[in-house]
Amino acid sequence: MEIAIVNGPNLNLLGKREVDIYGNQDFDSYFVTLKREFDGHELTYFQSNSEGKLIDHIQEVGFKVDGIVLNPAGYSHTSVALADAVAAIPAPVVEVHISNIFLRESFRHHSYISPVATGIVSGLGLTGYRLAVEFLLNNVK
Amino acid sequence: MEIAIVNGPNLNLLGKREVDIYGNQDFDSYFVTLKREFDGHELTYFQSNSEGKLIDHIQEVGFKVDGIVLNPAGYSHTSVALADAVAAIPAPVVEVHISNIFLRESFRHHSYISPVATGIVSGLGLTGYRLAVEFLLNNVK
Amino acid sequence: MEIAIVNGPNLNLLGKREVDIYGNQDFDSYFVTLKREFDGHELTYFQSNSEGKLIDHIQEVGFKVDGIVLNPAGYSHTSVALADAVAAIPAPVVEVHISNIFLRESFRHHSYISPVATGIVSGLGLTGYRLAVEFLLNNVK
Amino acid sequence: MEIAIVNGPNLNLLGKREVDIYGNQDFDSYFVTLKREFDGHELTYFQSNSEGKLIDHIQEVGFKVDGIVLNPAGYSHTSVALADAVAAIPAPVVEVHISNIFLRESFRHHSYISPVATGIVSGLGLTGYRLAVEFLLNNVK
Amino acid sequence: MEIAIVNGPNLNLLGKREVDIYGNQDFDSYFVTLKREFDGHELTYFQSNSEGKLIDHIQEVGFKVDGIVLNPAGYSHTSVALADAVAAIPAPVVEVHISNIFLRESFRHHSYISPVATGIVSGLGLTGYRLAVEFLLNNVK
Amino acid sequence: MEIAIVNGPNLNLLGKREVDIYGNQDFDSYFVTLKREFDGHELTYFQSNSEGKLIDHIQEVGFKVDGIVLNPAGYSHTSVALADAVAAIPAPVVEVHISNIFLRESFRHHSYISPVATGIVSGLGLTGYRLAVEFLLNNVK
Amino acid sequence: MEIAIVNGPNLNLLGKREVDIYGNQDFDSYFVTLKREFDGHELTYFQSNSEGKLIDHIQEVGFKVDGIVLNPAGYSHTSVALADAVAAIPAPVVEVHISNIFLRESFRHHSYISPVATGIVSGLGLTGYRLAVEFLLNNVK
Amino acid sequence: MEIAIVNGPNLNLLGKREVDIYGNQDFDSYFVTLKREFDGHELTYFQSNSEGKLIDHIQEVGFKVDGIVLNPAGYSHTSVALADAVAAIPAPVVEVHISNIFLRESFRHHSYISPVATGIVSGLGLTGYRLAVEFLLNNVK
Amino acid sequence: MEIAIVNGPNLNLLGKREVDIYGNQDFDSYFVTLKREFDGHELTYFQSNSEGKLIDHIQEVGFKVDGIVLNPAGYSHTSVALADAVAAIPAPVVEVHISNIFLRESFRHHSYISPVATGIVSGLGLTGYRLAVEFLLNNVK
Amino acid sequence: MEIAIVNGPNLNLLGKREVDIYGNQDFDSYFVTLKREFDGHELTYFQSNSEGKLIDHIQEVGFKVDGIVLNPAGYSHTSVALADAVAAIPAPVVEVHISNIFLRESFRHHSYISPVATGIVSGLGLTGYRLAVEFLLNNVK
Amino acid sequence: MEIAIVNGPNLNLLGKREVDIYGNQDFDSYFVTLKREFDGHELTYFQSNSEGKLIDHIQEVGFKVDGIVLNPAGYSHTSVALADAVAAIPAPVVEVHISNIFLRESFRHHSYISPVATGIVSGLGLTGYRLAVEFLLNNVK
Amino acid sequence: MEIAIVNGPNLNLLGKREVDIYGNQDFDSYFVTLKREFDGHELTYFQSNSEGKLIDHIQEVGFKVDGIVLNPAGYSHTSVALADAVAAIPAPVVEVHISNIFLRESFRHHSYISPVATGIVSGLGLTGYRLAVEFLLNNVK
Repeated sequence: MEIAIVNGPNLNLLGKREVDIYGNQDFDSYFVTLKREFDGHELTYFQSNSEGKLIDHIQEVGFKVDGIVLNPAGYSHTSVALADAVAAIPAPVVEVHISNIFLRESFRHHSYISPVATGIVSGLGLTGYRLAVEFLLNNVK
Repeated sequence: MEIAIVNGPNLNLLGKREVDIYGNQDFDSYFVTLKREFDGHELTYFQSNSEGKLIDHIQEVGFKVDGIVLNPAGYSHTSVALADAVAAIPAPVVEVHISNIFLRESFRHHSYISPVATGIVSGLGLTGYRLAVEFLLNNVK
Repeated sequence: MEIAIVNGPNLNLLGKREVDIYGNQDFDSYFVTLKREFDGHELTYFQSNSEGKLIDHIQEVGFKVDGIVLNPAGYSHTSVALADAVAAIPAPVVEVHISNIFLRESFRHHSYISPVATGIVSGLGLTGYRLAVEFLLNNVK
Repeated sequence: MEIAIVNGPNLNLLGKREVDIYGNQDFDSYFVTLKREFDGHELTYFQSNSEGKLIDHIQEVGFKVDGIVLNPAGYSHTSVALADAVAAIPAPVVEVHISNIFLRESFRHHSYISPVATGIVSGLGLTGYRLAVEFLLNNVK
Repeated sequence: MEIAIVNGPNLNLLGKREVDIYGNQDFDSYFVTLKREFDGHELTYFQSNSEGKLIDHIQEVGFKVDGIVLNPAGYSHTSVALADAVAAIPAPVVEVHISNIFLRESFRHHSYISPVATGIVSGLGLTGYRLAVEFLLNNVK
Repeated sequence: MEIAIVNGPNLNLLGKREVDIYGNQDFDSYFVTLKREFDGHELTYFQSNSEGKLIDHIQEVGFKVDGIVLNPAGYSHTSVALADAVAAIPAPVVEVHISNIFLRESFRHHSYISPVATGIVSGLGLTGYRLAVEFLLNNVK
Repeated sequence: MEIAIVNGPNLNLLGKREVDIYGNQDFDSYFVTLKREFDGHELTYFQSNSEGKLIDHIQEVGFKVDGIVLNPAGYSHTSVALADAVAAIPAPVVEVHISNIFLRESFRHHSYISPVATGIVSGLGLTGYRLAVEFLLNNVK
Repeated sequence: MEIAIVNGPNLNLLGKREVDIYGNQDFDSYFVTLKREFDGHELTYFQSNSEGKLIDHIQEVGFKVDGIVLNPAGYSHTSVALADAVAAIPAPVVEVHISNIFLRESFRHHSYISPVATGIVSGLGLTGYRLAVEFLLNNVK
Repeated sequence: MEIAIVNGPNLNLLGKREVDIYGNQDFDSYFVTLKREFDGHELTYFQSNSEGKLIDHIQEVGFKVDGIVLNPAGYSHTSVALADAVAAIPAPVVEVHISNIFLRESFRHHSYISPVATGIVSGLGLTGYRLAVEFLLNNVK
Repeated sequence: MEIAIVNGPNLNLLGKREVDIYGNQDFDSYFVTLKREFDGHELTYFQSNSEGKLIDHIQEVGFKVDGIVLNPAGYSHTSVALADAVAAIPAPVVEVHISNIFLRESFRHHSYISPVATGIVSGLGLTGYRLAVEFLLNNVK
Repeated sequence: MEIAIVNGPNLNLLGKREVDIYGNQDFDSYFVTLKREFDGHELTYFQSNSEGKLIDHIQEVGFKVDGIVLNPAGYSHTSVALADAVAAIPAPVVEVHISNIFLRESFRHHSYISPVATGIVSGLGLTGYRLAVEFLLNNVK
Repeated sequence: MEIAIVNGPNLNLLGKREVDIYGNQDFDSYFVTLKREFDGHELTYFQSNSEGKLIDHIQEVGFKVDGIVLNPAGYSHTSVALADAVAAIPAPVVEVHISNIFLRESFRHHSYISPVATGIVSGLGLTGYRLAVEFLLNNVK
């Protein structure tokens, strides 16, 4: 099976940015571990700070992969267009947030993506990505 | 006369995406019909999923065409920057929505573009584009 | 085909009232032009300042004409009863506003009629009526 | 390790209640599978329709187990007292919702439990419980 | 005279729970001191995590004691039913909060009990109970 | 036919509590009259101050009686869990309020039960129960 | 005794309009049944789409009948003037809604009439009218 | 000079309706006194319960009298259409309320008429009409 | 009779400040005219920019004059303390605003003084003071 | 020890103003009793209607007394500046309200002082001052 | 040129109050530095805790200086009257806040002064005053 | 020292767009002046209409320059992602707005950037950039 992992804005700084909130591991090294763990399946990774490029990518992979793990980061709370892209594609999308967004500023409590996602995993750190992949591999037919 | 048609995010999926809401005709084939209908005038077409590229394009055509037909899609509800671009140019802009946005989620009822547009056509399907072009050709001096 | 044009409160003053917003043409003379333009079709016109009489009229024509062009004026923002009448009839209704209501007071941004109308044309002046008739003639089967 | 699974009101009806939302498997039979899967660890299960009994139970297990998987169901949205209990105990709590609560009525979008939970899993069906147990077993030291 | 002290949910954890907010004295030992101080009067104490049992108790003592000191804890902010019980009984009720609830989350700023209580003491620690008893003994005729 | 009457918190005080609002008849004596009036049908009565016990009871009778008359009292305005129980059972539920709740505090104007009830009778005093039973006996097939 | 039944806007379409919400019986035939059932009492019926005419009628009958059954339909949610008329007359008014208004759009959840009515019956179909008449005949002295 | 006095819905009941709020003098007898006091000027009086007829009348007198004293009663708070009529005419309009509307329900604190009126007199009883006439006679040129 | 006129902050600038809104007559010269007009009665005048001094003055004159004409200016919208002073005195108070406050910023639409005043005159320019004095002289017994 | 009692606006009228809410004892005579009761400690008293003078006084005593009992009256709800003064001084402040502010207008339910006070006593009449002094003497080290 | 610096409530405590927010330099010593830096221009300084005195001062200097630097402190968020004074004078006003008010409580995010000020400098510490003076000296003609 | 100046969407139109609001100088020519004035320091300039490119640039310069002057223009009000980038970098950021945003539409009064910026300068025209650079050069260590 093929799973696409998509990270939104500023997640390229993971590991150097606000390490008390996000931990000090960068995503590239985590992705190596993740691929190893799900050996036998194809995992791809894409990150962009641009809303438009994220939409382009979701449109591109959304018609061919078996599932998408999406951390929309700051665009969760502001992007109707990204949510529209998620709604437009056949692949199921699991929304992941590294930190517990309900512990942070109130504008982070609302996500445009959540109502169009299959499900949401929030606050479980990088482990959230692994659980989301696991869900997609086992539950998508 | 010269009219620019500008489509926002996810409208490149028209015809394959949520056909019960948007119909099953893709915009490229519709644009061929439209150009034929307004033979003798110059019609151009641009689509992007990127807010920045839409602003660049509005800035570029906004100082030279006679009118713009803009479907801002998801950016209608979130982009002050796109609205500022529309406000900054001399060309009149007619905002078009294919579906009746007042029948959908409440966050789609507000558009930052509407107060800076000349007028709005909503819910009349692809025909909305034709009526908007017709208005611009006849009413802009 | 038969199309009913229905105007709400104060639109009988068109041409003498706030001409900077609504222009200085009265609706009766415009209606003459309109009928000439759609020669071969039957167009009727009704105006009332009374919510009850507008509902009576919508109920009456709504079961026999092919489409209705309705400018509910001040009742757009306050009349659930008029919206219920529009929802109750089989004829499709296009809501028209002469001025861009999104440029005016915020209580004019909400219309009870919009979610029960087929579509909305706003801010295109008297031309809006013509485009609405054109849409109904071409798109209603 | 010892993990307590706690289900709130009406989850005893799982499998017979609104099966289009919650599926048709009852929790007891699912719990058998779950225990088998995490063989070698101690899993306990408690369900109550009473806010007070849920608080009593959280207080009781919260000082001795290694983690709690809590589906507060209807009390998520209304119980400050249950949230206070979660905040008062040393055991980490993962909040689980079977359905995607952001697809349902707006009063279900807010949970008093979320800001005091370690993390949240929503919309992944019964699988959500398994992923939550997995997280607790691997991430709690 | 007879005064009933009633504590709501999680106050049985006083002294072990969040000691930076609530202090480290448990209520039972405090109650011994309190009874000694008001020697010659009858003081009773009841605590429950259950909204229903608190209502039962308020109904039971409310028709026979001279006054009630009630710390509704988490139910302050959510229980119309508890407030209805307080309104239904003849005994005067003083609402007590150990911490200053206006320094905490905004949902703790509103109490359904306050408008039906005689008065409120908030933020004065366990001393608040003593002051409330003192008020009831001196001011109730 | 079998009809279950279920009363929520503080309704056991009917007749002694705030008689200007609720009248001075207690429910037990009223229930005797009611049973006599609907002789030939089975009427049961249950009252509790506990949200959890009300949910237990609704779940228990909801799968076997022909209809339920429910006065949720204070829980009307705060209990998602009770509403979920009403939604989960096959028996139709008529919500009854003795007083006109729209004449009282604004937090009493909203009921979580109303959208999941078949209908609502409010402000018609104890007669409301009789009318609700009558409705269920005649209209449920 | 004399009871006036008053129906608001669009209820003249009952039986042909949105039959899935309102059923397919028209009110005139229902009224025949109703009069037969309350043989020995005088029942009158009035319907209008006009807010002003409804106020005129309420003022006229309100000083002479023993009770009024009023379904204000769309004016429930918007007419302070109609509510003022109800408040101004001595006759008691029972507000009736055929459908459960709490299951519909949120603007239908508020009624200006409710706080000035004696009571409200909602969601019990045409039976609601009969129950309201029954209440007035038995409870008005 | 010519001044039109226009009264909205239910003011025909003045003197018999809620006399503790509105006093017990009916308007017709007051109008006789008023005309005598402003002898030498022409005063006309119109009352209607119908929003549409009030708009018709405002449109009719608004182009020929020197000033209008308008008590819009219940339509103050709900009628955009009446406010539009006031805005459309050249005659200055003074809005009068007999009672102090800021002492009553909060929905009476907002008037659509106020921003289009020259001024407002509220709470000064029937004297308010006299002061408004006096203002118009002295200040309108 | 004795009437006190009290002006709030910045009204000492009348005649030099924003003359398009407030006119160009200063209050001292207007007061001379006013006193002459109500010859035979005692009129006093006080202005302050200080909330505390206005309260002191209201307390002082409020127990001895027959009525007060108060223009609270900017304090209308922010001073609970001034409103408490007005509520505490026996003299009736008429609130006057020179301009129509409903035509200005929305924070000017609410006045803490209005619910404790006898009545309000707004938008009638300096004439408003004269009408208020006239009302007090004729209607206060 | 030294305790400063500070009363805000209109409390100089205590005993003559709205005696049904505030009782008929004036504060000066109460203060005599209070000083006698806390013989051996120094109590001072200050009242002003001026926000600025209250701030000046709080600043002056706040750096030298052992505690302050502050009844901010009307300034509770409007004065950020007074709250800033309370936050700026080292002396602990207990906020006292004579009446139960949660039984009064909703704008009285919020106090800017509460989050910067040590605690709040509300609704216990003049006794509230005594209890607050008692708290400060016993709990401040 | 002449520039007036005006400080609002509690700024006389600068240097001793909450030094982590406002720094530990008092304004008098800072003002000495500031005057030295703008040698050749006249700088004056005024501070008051009283809204009324600040208004008096603004009125006094506002008609003669070339510019005002105003830190309204707590009155920023509550004083319409102070904003009216700023709007009434010809001198341009720059609003300065020492701390970044958008990092603090939400009621500090709104300032009545900002819309009537020429510009705002916030969060740049005492340096903000110097930059504001510099702006006024260079940009006011 | 090195300072980066970053301009958001539509600021490339400065000098040709809405010159009454923004003035008629374009930024490039202004930047020449600015560099000359701060001779001896390195100033860089970047403008983009794309949110993603602005984030890329902030991430790039944010780890190496001594300070950033950022005018986020339309993205101020909508971009959580840009604010996250500002929060993620070590360089201090001063937010600058050319016009006074509090004088414009209410949606421009809120900026996501402000709480993560060191300070804000608004309404001081192009001079705002110079003052911000001056602050950074003098206050950053």
